[in-house]
Amino acid sequence: MDDVDGFTRRLAETSARARTQGVDAVLVTPGPDLRYLIGYDAVPLERLTCLVVPAEGSPTLVVPALERAAAIESGAGRLDLSIESWMETDDAYARVAATLPGARRVAVDDHMAALQVLRLRDAMPTVHQELATPVLGSLRMIKSPAEIAALSAAGAAIDRVHSQVPDLLRAGRTEREVGRDIAELIIAEGHTRVDFVIVASGPNAASPHHEVSDRVLREGDSIVVDIGGTMPDGYCSDETRTYALGDPGAEFLANYDVLQSAQAAATAAVRPGISCEAVDAVARDILAEAGLGDLFIHRLGHGIGLDTHEEPYLVQGNARPLQLGMAFSIEPGFYAEGRFGARIEDIVVCGDEGAVVLNNRPRELVVVS
Amino acid sequence: MDDVDGFTRRLAETSARARTQGVDAVLVTPGPDLRYLIGYDAVPLERLTCLVVPAEGSPTLVVPALERAAAIESGAGRLDLSIESWMETDDAYARVAATLPGARRVAVDDHMAALQVLRLRDAMPTVHQELATPVLGSLRMIKSPAEIAALSAAGAAIDRVHSQVPDLLRAGRTEREVGRDIAELIIAEGHTRVDFVIVASGPNAASPHHEVSDRVLREGDSIVVDIGGTMPDGYCSDETRTYALGDPGAEFLANYDVLQSAQAAATAAVRPGISCEAVDAVARDILAEAGLGDLFIHRLGHGIGLDTHEEPYLVQGNARPLQLGMAFSIEPGFYAEGRFGARIEDIVVCGDEGAVVLNNRPRELVVVS
Repeated sequence: MDDVDGFTRRLAETSARARTQGVDAVLVTPGPDLRYLIGYDAVPLERLTCLVVPAEGSPTLVVPALERAAAIESGAGRLDLSIESWMETDDAYARVAATLPGARRVAVDDHMAALQVLRLRDAMPTVHQELATPVLGSLRMIKSPAEIAALSAAGAAIDRVHSQVPDLLRAGRTEREVGRDIAELIIAEGHTRVDFVIVASGPNAASPHHEVSDRVLREGDSIVVDIGGTMPDGYCSDETRTYALGDPGAEFLANYDVLQSAQAAATAAVRPGISCEAVDAVARDILAEAGLGDLFIHRLGHGIGLDTHEEPYLVQGNARPLQLGMAFSIEPGFYAEGRFGARIEDIVVCGDEGAVVLNNRPRELVVVS
Repeated sequence: MDDVDGFTRRLAETSARARTQGVDAVLVTPGPDLRYLIGYDAVPLERLTCLVVPAEGSPTLVVPALERAAAIESGAGRLDLSIESWMETDDAYARVAATLPGARRVAVDDHMAALQVLRLRDAMPTVHQELATPVLGSLRMIKSPAEIAALSAAGAAIDRVHSQVPDLLRAGRTEREVGRDIAELIIAEGHTRVDFVIVASGPNAASPHHEVSDRVLREGDSIVVDIGGTMPDGYCSDETRTYALGDPGAEFLANYDVLQSAQAAATAAVRPGISCEAVDAVARDILAEAGLGDLFIHRLGHGIGLDTHEEPYLVQGNARPLQLGMAFSIEPGFYAEGRFGARIEDIVVCGDEGAVVLNNRPRELVVVS
């Protein structure tokens, strides 16, 4: 993504959307939005680094003096923006405020820490703060060809990890031991960061966000493995497959068949123009018809890019139509408290002829014997 | 830290300090503050998880339904708090607001994302939001014996990494290659997460927060290695040593001697009652006397605990007196743009007889030949 023209276009688009929203500026601190706009992968710390993208005029990057060199090196130095550095005893918030005389409404990036949100509020007491989601979320939601290629590489990397998971699952090992091995594989297969490792076996799988525990795997367990990481370019992977150690029982197998149909049908429903909630409903209706509606306790999916979770969310109540280039997960599941759980998750991109699926491990239950 | 009594005391202390500050409640989302208060190491995501600690009455943890089991498992289930879960289509922010009828001032944790700060603001339009720093920062700043032991273990772990750094430094290798090896060692020596790896060689060391680059190490380079990670219990390590490949030159060596004296003198100045800025001044004055004052471009240090950077900050303008049990870095440096840089950093705890130093690698320049 290291492309001056691309960043310049994104900055211009941010200003244009700010104007449309009636917002005087968008303020962005270190995190995925900053990386998206100027390619600067700064560590979020308590010292204020803040990109000010005004609705009119060119952007300013306010950075601590001791980050100045790193900011310029990152590529921000090649863009049409002024870099203002502040010393340890300066008031960095006043510096940001000074770039926006007369502003009445500013948007702040979703990830900005309260420490900075409230200090900016106090430095600009007459300014109304709002979320930058309508500006930046809508921009980031539509992936460029380079971004789709990056997500595709992330999908292939996490596929390679899943292909090795069956070798790690043996009766007698704990979830934690398996999780540790998976974390190493996530790095070995090309990610720079492990974002999450869920190894949820037997009744633990009934908690969708269980991580790992000291539970020992045993014969007959079904095991949900939901894993993801961040690639060197910042793009994220996220893929879930369900495994079984031997025979997980007839009821589980029957439910799993329904789940697989639901996941396939939702994927097949993806096309430009269909609403997010309609895709959710496709999977939900199939599970409900089989009596599993109450066991599917979460939304169908979430957008993905430089964040693991971003817009669009495939959830009841979200009438937003899918558009070409949106990337998101399709991950129905069923969860029976105290008993078992299962989930199948792929990342897909909305293409003009339907879903382009970026994870390609088999979706059948993988029985390890 | 897995101790019901400890968490109960911390929650009670939070309520008491909220009363003193005149704040009706403290709101805490996933992050170090949440882990500190209830031991719940939740992943920060867009779905709202929020601990409400009222000034009067017992706390409530509002969690997404699909995180409920994980929250209870984390130990929060053993504490005297109510757990309220919300479903995907519920308004989680209204749920938090409903726990605080009549509130006028609420404090939010420093790390809370703008997404949640501004939605909470909109859900409680008559409530004034402020930072929880005066409540939680002041509480977390004084470490318990168990926390000091945890920081000490983290210090020993990063010492073990530094002891292996000389073997990694060879002319012809890039900073990035060395950094990758160090990241692996950080995990191998007991951390669960790599927080940062700075390998700043030659002129790159003049940028205090340079990370790694493709610059090739060569004879005569001085190399700043500033590294840290998070241990399984959440406590952080952070240690800087400066290395040289062969002879870095007389000027560098003379400056380094001054730096080492400044670091030692600041460490020796640590005692209960001395102000943060006075400790900073001890190092700064020694560097200034030797003509290096303009090259020491950052504060002397930062507190450390469940965050790598937290209160207290040892910086000019901070008159806060050190107290028994405070833990922080002492890390003077000098930075000559385009030429070289150096830094020496230890984590210390303020004890009643002076600084207890938690990093114990030699502070002399380590010359690798």
